[in-house]
Amino acid sequence: MKNTIFAFNSDSPKYKQIYEQFKLFIERGDIPPGEQLPSIRMLADSLQVSRNTTLMAYDQLVAEGYIHGEGRKGYFVNELEALLVQKAFISPNKEEKESETPVLIDFRAGAVDQTHFPVKVWRKISNQVLTLQENFQYGEPFGETCLREQIATYLLQSRGVKTEANAIIIGSSTQQMLIHLGHLLKDNFPSIIVEDPGYDGAREAFQFHRFSLETLPVYESGADFSLLEQMKSQVIYVTPSHQSPIGVSMTIQQRQTLIRWATKRKGYIIEDDYDSEFRYTQQPFPALASIDSTRVIYLGNFSKSFLPGIRLSYMVLPPSLINHYKDQFLPFESTTSLLHQLTMAKFMEVGEWSRHIKRMRLVYKRKMQHLVSLLKEQFEQRITIIGEQSGLYVLVKVHQKRSEEWLIERASFYGVKVYPTSLYFIKNKTSEPIIKLGFSNLSCDEIQLGVELLKKSWS
Amino acid sequence: MKNTIFAFNSDSPKYKQIYEQFKLFIERGDIPPGEQLPSIRMLADSLQVSRNTTLMAYDQLVAEGYIHGEGRKGYFVNELEALLVQKAFISPNKEEKESETPVLIDFRAGAVDQTHFPVKVWRKISNQVLTLQENFQYGEPFGETCLREQIATYLLQSRGVKTEANAIIIGSSTQQMLIHLGHLLKDNFPSIIVEDPGYDGAREAFQFHRFSLETLPVYESGADFSLLEQMKSQVIYVTPSHQSPIGVSMTIQQRQTLIRWATKRKGYIIEDDYDSEFRYTQQPFPALASIDSTRVIYLGNFSKSFLPGIRLSYMVLPPSLINHYKDQFLPFESTTSLLHQLTMAKFMEVGEWSRHIKRMRLVYKRKMQHLVSLLKEQFEQRITIIGEQSGLYVLVKVHQKRSEEWLIERASFYGVKVYPTSLYFIKNKTSEPIIKLGFSNLSCDEIQLGVELLKKSWS
Repeated sequence: MKNTIFAFNSDSPKYKQIYEQFKLFIERGDIPPGEQLPSIRMLADSLQVSRNTTLMAYDQLVAEGYIHGEGRKGYFVNELEALLVQKAFISPNKEEKESETPVLIDFRAGAVDQTHFPVKVWRKISNQVLTLQENFQYGEPFGETCLREQIATYLLQSRGVKTEANAIIIGSSTQQMLIHLGHLLKDNFPSIIVEDPGYDGAREAFQFHRFSLETLPVYESGADFSLLEQMKSQVIYVTPSHQSPIGVSMTIQQRQTLIRWATKRKGYIIEDDYDSEFRYTQQPFPALASIDSTRVIYLGNFSKSFLPGIRLSYMVLPPSLINHYKDQFLPFESTTSLLHQLTMAKFMEVGEWSRHIKRMRLVYKRKMQHLVSLLKEQFEQRITIIGEQSGLYVLVKVHQKRSEEWLIERASFYGVKVYPTSLYFIKNKTSEPIIKLGFSNLSCDEIQLGVELLKKSWS
Repeated sequence: MKNTIFAFNSDSPKYKQIYEQFKLFIERGDIPPGEQLPSIRMLADSLQVSRNTTLMAYDQLVAEGYIHGEGRKGYFVNELEALLVQKAFISPNKEEKESETPVLIDFRAGAVDQTHFPVKVWRKISNQVLTLQENFQYGEPFGETCLREQIATYLLQSRGVKTEANAIIIGSSTQQMLIHLGHLLKDNFPSIIVEDPGYDGAREAFQFHRFSLETLPVYESGADFSLLEQMKSQVIYVTPSHQSPIGVSMTIQQRQTLIRWATKRKGYIIEDDYDSEFRYTQQPFPALASIDSTRVIYLGNFSKSFLPGIRLSYMVLPPSLINHYKDQFLPFESTTSLLHQLTMAKFMEVGEWSRHIKRMRLVYKRKMQHLVSLLKEQFEQRITIIGEQSGLYVLVKVHQKRSEEWLIERASFYGVKVYPTSLYFIKNKTSEPIIKLGFSNLSCDEIQLGVELLKKSWS
């Protein structure tokens, strides 16, 4: 019974969530009339809830006429009026939309895999760190030296970036780093080039300081960097290893072109290397900052590869900016948890970080392959899959005369949450809608159910 | 042997730190020739280090001729040349300063009491929270609702501030909240009034947005708010419950004057209530925001009362600013640890927070009384103590023709770290030097040693 996959949320009692999800499966015909439900014991075990919880859910379904008990044999699905079954297949109208369908499968891109998270090790180190004397004081304004040293070592090994603790700034998020950077650059550089489509959060950070923005169109084949020559900006924000959201990587020629451009213009390249850990088809491409660090500001974070909730990011500054940055920001306390910084430093020092990354690369690769093969199987030529070589999401271009909004709403009616991409596009709009599917915190079974429901909802 | 108090730091091996501190005590005559040192076992137990560590320290002292062993009887201090003893009492010259004296007692104000920190409860809740599903996603941009609700309840009970979760913004630090606020206000309010002396970190945050600053002089008797009428600003930043750094509280008349001024000017009062939890002589004064919240932006934090390293602050916005703030900052992810937010919410919900505050108020009150009585005993009329009714530090005005720098350097030569106040003053300078002594993470014994060494150093 692959359909009995539940995403519990904390808002309503668990028995109610089980009841609602079964109700939905029955109404949609996913569990046909006459079919037997799993036994109380089996379901309780597989969902890790008490038998009482399961019993309450079944009782409710019995009371409402969805199922009936046959003594020791178990519970069976009733014949439902045609009307009820049909309900799920007609287009949602306003009223129905308001009685929200519960979310069964959430293709959210901002979550990380919970099953493989190293809870025990992290907890152990975190508990040790809590009693350290350093923890009872304010930390260093640019981040703890021990963590900056670990990051320097990691960047050299995995990204080819030669740097030292002194050039690394620890912060809470990429956006915050971009706001700090913007403060530093705004007086000398009034405008910035951004990718189109590109990460909306970066644009927001630049608009915070009222930079004027120029856009560089990016396609599935990449961007045309010769266009840079016609632009007036001296600063560009790019995602070279895994373009956000298109997923394409810059070739070495493009990287070199970009560096030559920045050198000639005496400007800067802001390289956001946000999820370079997860490349599945070949070794990660070297970072721009590994080729020539004099004009590159390198950004990395622990949100995709570890846990977004610890709010831990970092930035490597080129020599020409370090002192200027420190002069400007020395008066400000760090915004980043000292406890998490000390824990992460230890976690990296004892080798747990590289173990975690290696493990997660395999886990996510398996999930990515699973998602892509299911999408191909279910949709065949009706969609194009974009960006399957790396990262924690794919884009799906839907070859249908439907709007992005329609696709999202229909999916939502089937309990599947999928995400828009139109917010990433500025001028370089596409004619067909593109949907974003993150998979990091879904199991393979959940991915399968999600794709199956998507197919039903979009056909 | 009250003098054997060690503040280990992580930079050098522990045995070396023990060795250096004993060496200092012996050189200064704090442990006179002939006196017996504590036994290896006793010292190891009291410092919670291995016996081997203690033995290595003693061996080093023996090797350098400071002490000698007498078999089973133990270790005894040698007669030292007069020169060596004298060395500690002559004024430090450049060369000596560079061979830094280790810090024995640090009167730092930014640390919190480590001994009474509820490590077990915090750890337990934090460990539970780590496995919650919410933790594997991004949090709410303005902070978790559960924590905002707890803060609303707390503010009503303890500060008389009527508010709701919706009006509360969670952030990492007071400075960060001020920078966000500055972004919101800068277009309509080009200048801000700050207290003189006042919190330098706030001024830095306002200068980040290039506000022009007007200054309101504050004396030990408080500020003269009639001066506000001559100023052009419509916004003022104040610390009403415990003026930073002078320690005076605004009377209710002053509070009402201030609110009338802001109402008339259609401006705002930024109320930084940074350590109002710790008032020792009477009930805390009600917050400005409890009198009239339409013109008051209220700031609070967990850095003084709980742990600076978790980086948790909050701001209560008046209705006229809430939507404007949310429009501006919705695109930005929170910078504050989701894990710490969820842990703190639970910690407050189960009543641990109010227990902690009650306990710490007693602990800090005892320390404050101890520090103040020792200062009076040792210095009599040669100093004036400022701000002993509340907070986690006192100011000491030294009636001596010496500079602040001299006082700090002399103290440092005796292993005592004390802090300047000149950085808080803008135009309203004082003729006599004022030194800041924080006591929160010092034991009563350490406070005693610190004051005794201070007396020696300044006489």
